[in-house]
Amino acid sequence: MNTDKVAILGGTGNLGFGLAKRLAAAGVPVVIGSRDAERAATAAKRALEDVPAGSVEGLSNPDAVTAVGRLIVLAVPLASQIETLKSVADQLSEGDIVLDTTVPLAPAIGGRPTQIVGVWAGSAAQQAAANVPKGVSVVSGLHTLSADLLEDLSADLAQSTLICGNRKADKDYVAQVLGRIDGLDIVDAGPLDTSRLVEGITAVLIGINIRYKTHAGISITGLTVHD
Amino acid sequence: MNTDKVAILGGTGNLGFGLAKRLAAAGVPVVIGSRDAERAATAAKRALEDVPAGSVEGLSNPDAVTAVGRLIVLAVPLASQIETLKSVADQLSEGDIVLDTTVPLAPAIGGRPTQIVGVWAGSAAQQAAANVPKGVSVVSGLHTLSADLLEDLSADLAQSTLICGNRKADKDYVAQVLGRIDGLDIVDAGPLDTSRLVEGITAVLIGINIRYKTHAGISITGLTVHD
Repeated sequence: MNTDKVAILGGTGNLGFGLAKRLAAAGVPVVIGSRDAERAATAAKRALEDVPAGSVEGLSNPDAVTAVGRLIVLAVPLASQIETLKSVADQLSEGDIVLDTTVPLAPAIGGRPTQIVGVWAGSAAQQAAANVPKGVSVVSGLHTLSADLLEDLSADLAQSTLICGNRKADKDYVAQVLGRIDGLDIVDAGPLDTSRLVEGITAVLIGINIRYKTHAGISITGLTVHD
Repeated sequence: MNTDKVAILGGTGNLGFGLAKRLAAAGVPVVIGSRDAERAATAAKRALEDVPAGSVEGLSNPDAVTAVGRLIVLAVPLASQIETLKSVADQLSEGDIVLDTTVPLAPAIGGRPTQIVGVWAGSAAQQAAANVPKGVSVVSGLHTLSADLLEDLSADLAQSTLICGNRKADKDYVAQVLGRIDGLDIVDAGPLDTSRLVEGITAVLIGINIRYKTHAGISITGLTVHD
C-alpha cells in the first residue's frame, strides 16, 4: 500500500485512461483498475509506452483499491457507477476518498449526450456518497475535462475543474494531487450537493463540442488566487 | 422606433444597469426600462455621467419596449419575471427578441443564492418563453456575468457568456449586439431548454465568489473560432 498511489476505477475507459497518463506524466504513481484485470494490465502497458518514466500498473478494481492508500478515482459510465462501488466496498476503508467523475448523461437511458437525467440522490456525486461504506468520503470533479485532450499529452489543458465535497481537507488533498497535472486549475465549487449543477455543465460542453467541432472546457475567471 | 436601440427592462437593477453602461460604452443606444419611469430617467442620467458619449434614455418598461425595434433584455429578479413580461405584452410584437437573463436563484423563496429552485417550465428561460406573445422569440444569456464587473468599465471582462435559444438567426443577432461589449465572448450553448443547465452555473459561481472573495465568471476554452 502506497498512500501516494492513485487508483482509477474504469481506468481503461477514455476519461480514466487519459487521466492515468496525465497523472503518470506528473509523477503520480497510478493503478488502472478494471473489471477485467487483463484489460487493466494491457491499458497500463499502453500508458507506459507514452509515459515511459511513469509508474502505471493494471489490476482488477478491488485489487486496485487495495493497492493504494487514500485516493480512488471513479471513472465509469453512470450505468456502472453503483455496481462498481459495490464491487469494491470490502476494499474501501475509513479515510479513503472516492473522487467521482460520473456525469448523469442521458445516453445512459438512450437519450442525447446534451441532456442529463435526474438521479434520485440529486446528483451522481450524491449517488456515489450513498453507495460507499461509512467513513469513506466522496469528492466530485473532472466532469468537464475532455478525454481526448487529457489523453493527448501534447495538448495544453489551460482550463479549470470544479470539485465538490463536504470535507475541506479531502478537497484540499484532491486539489493537491490533481493540481500536479499541467495546466489544470482546481476550483472548490462547494458542498457535494452543488455537484448537481456542476455535472450539468458537461452536457452543455458536449453540445458546444458538436456545434463548434472542438474539445471545449471551462475556465473560471477572476481567480487571482490561482493565476 | 430605432431597430438598433436595445431596451433593458429592469435596467435600474445591478445587472441591467451594468449592462446599460457596457452597451452604451460600446456605442449601442440603450433605453433603460423600469416600473417607475422616474427611476429609469435617474438611472439613465447616472449612466451618462460615466459614459458621456453614449446614448441612454430612461422610460417605463412598456415605453422602453415601444422605443426599440427588436431586442429587449429582461434583467429582473425571478419573482418579477412573469409580471414584467405581462406588463409589456401589448408592446411586444412579432419578430421581437427577448433576451432573458433570469436565474432561478433560491433567494426568490428565501433560500440560499448558491442554490436554485426548479421552475415548472424547466428553466427561467422557458418560463419567459411561456409568457411572451406568439411570434416573440426568447434567447437566454448573460447569466454568469458579475453585475459589479459589468458596471466597472475599467474592469476587463475577459470571459464568455452562454446563450440559448431555438432560432439560430435570433442567437446570431443577440451575439452581434452583445459581441460589441469589450472582452465578452458569446458562445452558442444550444436550444432554449439547455438554459436549465446554464442557469445553474450562476449559483456555482456565487458560491465561488463567497469562497474566493472575487467576481468569478466562466470562459469556454478550446474555441479557436472565438480566439
